Amino acid sequence: MRTVGVVVKPGSREAIAFARKVIAWLHERDVAAIVEDQATELAAAERVADRGELLRRADLAVVLGGDGTLLGVARQMRERSVPILGANFGQLGFLTVFSSDEVLPMLARVVAGDFDVTERLLLDVSARRKGAAVVENVVFNDAVISKGGAIARMIDLDTSIDEHFLCSYRADGLIVTTPSGSTAYSLSAGGPIVHPMLDVITLSPICPHTLTNRPIVVPDSVTVRVVAQSPDNDVVLSFDGQESCRLENGDVVEVRRAPMPARLVQSPERSFYEVLRNKLHWGHR
Amino acid sequence: MRTVGVVVKPGSREAIAFARKVIAWLHERDVAAIVEDQATELAAAERVADRGELLRRADLAVVLGGDGTLLGVARQMRERSVPILGANFGQLGFLTVFSSDEVLPMLARVVAGDFDVTERLLLDVSARRKGAAVVENVVFNDAVISKGGAIARMIDLDTSIDEHFLCSYRADGLIVTTPSGSTAYSLSAGGPIVHPMLDVITLSPICPHTLTNRPIVVPDSVTVRVVAQSPDNDVVLSFDGQESCRLENGDVVEVRRAPMPARLVQSPERSFYEVLRNKLHWGHR
Amino acid sequence: MRTVGVVVKPGSREAIAFARKVIAWLHERDVAAIVEDQATELAAAERVADRGELLRRADLAVVLGGDGTLLGVARQMRERSVPILGANFGQLGFLTVFSSDEVLPMLARVVAGDFDVTERLLLDVSARRKGAAVVENVVFNDAVISKGGAIARMIDLDTSIDEHFLCSYRADGLIVTTPSGSTAYSLSAGGPIVHPMLDVITLSPICPHTLTNRPIVVPDSVTVRVVAQSPDNDVVLSFDGQESCRLENGDVVEVRRAPMPARLVQSPERSFYEVLRNKLHWGHR
Amino acid sequence: MRTVGVVVKPGSREAIAFARKVIAWLHERDVAAIVEDQATELAAAERVADRGELLRRADLAVVLGGDGTLLGVARQMRERSVPILGANFGQLGFLTVFSSDEVLPMLARVVAGDFDVTERLLLDVSARRKGAAVVENVVFNDAVISKGGAIARMIDLDTSIDEHFLCSYRADGLIVTTPSGSTAYSLSAGGPIVHPMLDVITLSPICPHTLTNRPIVVPDSVTVRVVAQSPDNDVVLSFDGQESCRLENGDVVEVRRAPMPARLVQSPERSFYEVLRNKLHWGHR
Repeated sequence: MRTVGVVVKPGSREAIAFARKVIAWLHERDVAAIVEDQATELAAAERVADRGELLRRADLAVVLGGDGTLLGVARQMRERSVPILGANFGQLGFLTVFSSDEVLPMLARVVAGDFDVTERLLLDVSARRKGAAVVENVVFNDAVISKGGAIARMIDLDTSIDEHFLCSYRADGLIVTTPSGSTAYSLSAGGPIVHPMLDVITLSPICPHTLTNRPIVVPDSVTVRVVAQSPDNDVVLSFDGQESCRLENGDVVEVRRAPMPARLVQSPERSFYEVLRNKLHWGHR
Repeated sequence: MRTVGVVVKPGSREAIAFARKVIAWLHERDVAAIVEDQATELAAAERVADRGELLRRADLAVVLGGDGTLLGVARQMRERSVPILGANFGQLGFLTVFSSDEVLPMLARVVAGDFDVTERLLLDVSARRKGAAVVENVVFNDAVISKGGAIARMIDLDTSIDEHFLCSYRADGLIVTTPSGSTAYSLSAGGPIVHPMLDVITLSPICPHTLTNRPIVVPDSVTVRVVAQSPDNDVVLSFDGQESCRLENGDVVEVRRAPMPARLVQSPERSFYEVLRNKLHWGHR
Repeated sequence: MRTVGVVVKPGSREAIAFARKVIAWLHERDVAAIVEDQATELAAAERVADRGELLRRADLAVVLGGDGTLLGVARQMRERSVPILGANFGQLGFLTVFSSDEVLPMLARVVAGDFDVTERLLLDVSARRKGAAVVENVVFNDAVISKGGAIARMIDLDTSIDEHFLCSYRADGLIVTTPSGSTAYSLSAGGPIVHPMLDVITLSPICPHTLTNRPIVVPDSVTVRVVAQSPDNDVVLSFDGQESCRLENGDVVEVRRAPMPARLVQSPERSFYEVLRNKLHWGHR
Repeated sequence: MRTVGVVVKPGSREAIAFARKVIAWLHERDVAAIVEDQATELAAAERVADRGELLRRADLAVVLGGDGTLLGVARQMRERSVPILGANFGQLGFLTVFSSDEVLPMLARVVAGDFDVTERLLLDVSARRKGAAVVENVVFNDAVISKGGAIARMIDLDTSIDEHFLCSYRADGLIVTTPSGSTAYSLSAGGPIVHPMLDVITLSPICPHTLTNRPIVVPDSVTVRVVAQSPDNDVVLSFDGQESCRLENGDVVEVRRAPMPARLVQSPERSFYEVLRNKLHWGHR
């Protein structure tokens, strides 16, 4: 553990103040700290061009901010999967499971090599138009194919699993989600909670016209293919709810397991079930 | 019953062919038939400028097409509520409950004054920006305030019932629906089926982030007020899924009962429950 | 307001202690307090045989306990609808909307005639076997026809609304609920929230085999008729989840509006929407 | 393939008539046919004491009847997992995927060794009372812990996954289901569809009081532990909806993967997705 990348939620004073502490702590232990060029408030750490370079050089990424910031980092884990230690300053997140109090003690364990990571499935998402690539991305939570929104009108989503036709959803959209994403948008659409260590992909239709269209969980070894048709040619493909691109009728979206997972530093104290219970207010025994 | 307006689903050959039969049948009985200027395929009927004029002059509107065509007609029933006789050519609709075989026999009864109408609640929908009117419309099924769709990201919908704050939905959108609309979009969003003779408004959130946000049925005497906030200032207000307008953050949408209901000629043979059972494939005894 | 009946949740020390305060407070104002014979811990109040007699003699019923205690009182409001003032000692209930701090100030207003009541629909529920009455009861929340539970197996529920066949549910059971009951069992089964002042009955199937069987809201002027068939002749009809009776295959259950509503003393400060928001943890603006 | 056990749905004339054909067909090919002692209508086949013995001796089990009959056979696959070929006479089932027309051609392929089986997860289910075994069984679809049904009242289900407390459901019950069972009772309770080749267990609460209690999918390597408490000590544990036993408050139910899967002869023509589409009426492209 020689170099730690520190990623800060843009505009969060709390995160920046805390990043300073982390950087000082690292320097005391002769661990290099690198930050992105844009994090101009952070002195005393080496600057790197951008997040991509940061992740190429770091042995660990400390993400200070909410789940949203961590999502953006995880989507860049295509070539090299750096462990991510995520901390939150308000309510704990599903992904940023460390409170600010816990970050330095956990960092001490990480530096000492005394920690576990949980591997999280990433999905490769691509769209082709008449054979040519339109977009390619990786998602940590979900890829969503949905109506562009000009009018509240359903779109048709011809969906196949490998070579098998599944069905043609008439719906607001379709969420293709990882286990990590099962507690995000998919849950709001009626999808199940899926344990993060499972090798599965879940398809959750959004407001399907056919009431028997229900979420389905399939192996992550499959390729999910979706062709959307909208009466006004207005379809959007979005990635973790953070990036998006417009599709045309007939474009083919393909989703499959990414070659490499993301790796999150695990809390030694908080199980997935405890996080779940807290986030969903399930109460205590 | 002296003048019958005949409205034809644009582009439907079947509807046009059938409209000719209807017009001939009316003429034989000395009832005037009027059609819109744009229905150029229909000779032998008097032409009127547009649908608004047609509905002002007609004693009955015969709508030949699907539920979509009927919705467009019903939204114009602001000043004068003409009975609507709706027929469908494929599968019967929730609103167009007459098959083509049944239209002329039913017309005979209507001409003889031997028929019932079911009154259907309409909603007045308006939006104001800094006090000034942005849009005003009437809906038969539903008014939907939803994210514009650039990215799959939730919006916030501060919602009040009269002077009472209800809640702030974080969701894809909110459907404010009449009983007629309860079997349309609202049903896909998890809303209840509501008997058409009830004087109620139903609010169904679309994929709410807070899982305890459930559809709620309130009296139609209330004013529903919704102020939407979207991180990218991209909110859409749509009317029956057929017309729409863009909103800005802070715009105030108000929904209340319209002064006049729409009136549908009822099938003497098919109850609401039978239509429901058929449309939702509930099977038979 | 000359006589106030005080009903105490059995076995609740808190309720009993508070009842003493209420009784003393009433005596100071020359209002008679009556309690049930079984409430042996309460001296200084006149004793009456049972709850039925208490409700016949009282001008107001003060219910100290949770929603459950109030339900039991409300089910006895067949012949004479006494206003009920319900208080809770832990978390406020949907029905017991007064905290202990608020009871005496509210009583002062009631004694002064300065209060509002909300009328709540009650349902008459009866079952007949070969024409003969099996059971008759009134419910405040819901009548539930469900499988007896020997094995997790569905039953068939032939359901009609007035003379119209609705459908034959194949399900764990059917909840027929008042607006008051819409936030109780029906909500867990996927039913909508219904404003308490609406004159409607909601039918919510429990785990229906046919996925398109969805909750339906109908006018309270109808008669709902349900005939249940179970493979092992094991069906139960229950009233507000508090009383029940076994049915046999072919028994006819009928539910209709009771001639008299229950009347709850309203909180001058807390609207239905606020209660809802608190109970369902919808958060604040 | 020397000995084929033929299991017939009790009381089904069609199944018995067809079983005769199957037995004759087997004899022509010098394959022994065995039937249960109780299948007195079937001559020309060797009789065996009961289903247990039949499954110990057979190389293949041909099940003629619906999914229910196949479930009963599969629950006996504890020690020796015989391939099951299931046929249905009315509508095809999720498990009995062969129509009567297809049985003999498929049998020819099986006898020739030209066939695939799909392995289906079975679950071991046991209950202990003060340390002593109360019941032990295997399920193909689901184990359900639910209220006994005397009154429509919720029970509490303290649920753990391995050593982790999950939550205490307050609900009508809890369905612990295999992927095969995901399209049965669990689907009615709001559970997801799960691909049959996945190594997962799904927990679906039935009408949970806490609206955020949603179905959860966990690895099949875990032990699910449930302790139910009912106010009237009336809890039932049922197996595939076909067998059941009464529990007492404090009994510990444990569910884990059975050592051996069931094995179903696969249709060469019909994928899981096609069966799904047909059974749930999803329509065609």
